[in-house]
Amino acid sequence: MGSNLQDYSHRRFNILSGEWVLVSPHRAKRPWQGQEEEILWESRPAYDKDCYLCPGNTRAGGHTNPDYQDTFVFTNDFSALLKDTGPFSVDNGLLKAQSETGICKVICFSPDHSKSLAEMEVEAIEKVVKLWQSEFRSLGALETINYVQIFENKGAVMGCSNPHPHGQIWSQSTVPNEVAKKDRQQLNYFKENKSSLLGDYLEQEIQLNERIIYENEHFLILVPFWAVWPFETMIVPRVQQTDISALDASQRLSFAEAISALTKAYDRIFNCSFPYSSGIHQAPVNGQNNQHWHWHMSFYPPLLRSASVKKFMVGYEMFGSPQRDITAEIAAQRLKELIS
Amino acid sequence: MGSNLQDYSHRRFNILSGEWVLVSPHRAKRPWQGQEEEILWESRPAYDKDCYLCPGNTRAGGHTNPDYQDTFVFTNDFSALLKDTGPFSVDNGLLKAQSETGICKVICFSPDHSKSLAEMEVEAIEKVVKLWQSEFRSLGALETINYVQIFENKGAVMGCSNPHPHGQIWSQSTVPNEVAKKDRQQLNYFKENKSSLLGDYLEQEIQLNERIIYENEHFLILVPFWAVWPFETMIVPRVQQTDISALDASQRLSFAEAISALTKAYDRIFNCSFPYSSGIHQAPVNGQNNQHWHWHMSFYPPLLRSASVKKFMVGYEMFGSPQRDITAEIAAQRLKELIS
Ligand SMILES: O=P(O)(O)O[C@H]1O[C@H](CO)[C@@H](O)[C@H](O)[C@H]1O
Ligand SMILES: O=P(O)(O)O[C@H]1O[C@H](CO)[C@@H](O)[C@H](O)[C@H]1O
Repeated sequence: MGSNLQDYSHRRFNILSGEWVLVSPHRAKRPWQGQEEEILWESRPAYDKDCYLCPGNTRAGGHTNPDYQDTFVFTNDFSALLKDTGPFSVDNGLLKAQSETGICKVICFSPDHSKSLAEMEVEAIEKVVKLWQSEFRSLGALETINYVQIFENKGAVMGCSNPHPHGQIWSQSTVPNEVAKKDRQQLNYFKENKSSLLGDYLEQEIQLNERIIYENEHFLILVPFWAVWPFETMIVPRVQQTDISALDASQRLSFAEAISALTKAYDRIFNCSFPYSSGIHQAPVNGQNNQHWHWHMSFYPPLLRSASVKKFMVGYEMFGSPQRDITAEIAAQRLKELIS
Repeated sequence: MGSNLQDYSHRRFNILSGEWVLVSPHRAKRPWQGQEEEILWESRPAYDKDCYLCPGNTRAGGHTNPDYQDTFVFTNDFSALLKDTGPFSVDNGLLKAQSETGICKVICFSPDHSKSLAEMEVEAIEKVVKLWQSEFRSLGALETINYVQIFENKGAVMGCSNPHPHGQIWSQSTVPNEVAKKDRQQLNYFKENKSSLLGDYLEQEIQLNERIIYENEHFLILVPFWAVWPFETMIVPRVQQTDISALDASQRLSFAEAISALTKAYDRIFNCSFPYSSGIHQAPVNGQNNQHWHWHMSFYPPLLRSASVKKFMVGYEMFGSPQRDITAEIAAQRLKELIS
């Protein structure tokens, strides 16, 4: 990669969203006098009687959790989307609104309150993947659901209100903004090239070998060329699949291994339980032809310089475009050293 | 406004960006067990010898601030954009990048370290507006600058590293993402209707009188129908102007009064120095025909329920679309009670 990209301010194009990110490699030297986060290696007990996700405990809604052994899924007691509201819409001049229905679920990754994905066995992560698959299938089969967003917020700094290892699924009647962008970009590319945008991108990255940090039988992990967050990464299946329901047992194992390797590497960067939001972007379930889709899982971790200094996406980023300091290549190099 | 919008989950369309926001009015009751911010009414001295923005002090770059009386502007010692880098570009298959040049400035609003805009006199705010105008004009006149982004990050929770009252200007060679979206939406509307999108929207809001929280001679403040942040607002000139350079003395006074009234009302919501990022979106300065532009200033404040509980834009919001709990109408009602 030309050294210009390592030295001078520039913008990079995100082929999946069609948007730009501003990169300021020279700016990493800026001193920091602002807010610092408290992120500790807190050692937690394996069971916490006050945790509403631990086995056997009673939740806010009054339900009691079963004595689950691996994973446990339930409908969110405070769902952002409601299931059975009658359809309505507002179309009043420049005011436009539509009812949106959906189902929000919580997935406990493990009964063990003290663990994160980084500390779980690969076989336990496989079970999480299996649950994602079955939830994707059953939610996706509902007539009112057109998109299933699987995600995890990890760490208090990412708005996670409970350290018990868990993720969420919000499934809904329309296709949300970020997915619609990726749908459009992939479709346009597919129409023009008769091949997968992300598949062709992967081939280029394999040849360049500058941003790939991990490979196994079925998956690659890389820092995308257009990464926004300091240590942003993407886990991508080598073979084009529209969604995770297509994963067979051997691919599921590979995927779990990739998640395990990545989350362990993250924890090593600043020697802390590394916060992030992760999410799986996959084809809508609206029954349309989705052959242009190549699903992938992205990690957006906020930490920039240490366990306590994060990158703030504020003023310029909110009004202009995302901005990053360290380049994707430097982040990839660092992660490659730490992953095994 | 139909009560559906106050009771059931729905999405609203942002006419300026062309994107959707998910609204979950029923969700405001969710208990909070997550991270709390520390936002105090810290009383600061009027002068701090360790502040690199106070008059007479020496900055990291070695420059000494003048003994300024009102405002003070200088080129950011750690600019994200560099001015004089030769142009370069990467156009390698699916990797696309371009050099981006620009000038980043810091604007001190007052020599008084202890004040925020909410605590400054209207006449002092007028001087800030005047400086924004002259910076917009002089930066905009440079051949290499095509867009001038004026913004402020207020509060440690918004990544602001110094409490001295100040804002920033990042001016650059291309038009950033968020501005490009608004440019497109306003242009499409103008072509079709031969009138200003925001002007027509204002008229509708004046008639409905549900989201307007303040009016003076030349400006309105409202919570836009599609607001994302809990107490998001927009200050809009009644008359269509492409950018702030058009403001005359009487309009400047009106604008300063609006900023003063709004920031004071914000501080009253949770009885704290209310954090936010604010920014002015206005026409690009690339010499094209910008008659479709109607400039406005937006405030994106993160606090949701108290001085210490903010809204996290994380997992679902990053991968799906922005999501809010309290509706724009409830927020407007609350702000209207507090503004004077
Ligand atoms: O320039 P500052 O105040 O040091 O930095 C702050 O504002 C910038 C512009 O929004 C952001 O890029 C930084 O992440 C934020 O910490
Ligand atoms: O659902 P939780 O974990 O209570 O809440 C967290 O994740 C949600 C989905 O990303 C966000 O809307 C909330 O702002 C965040 O605090």
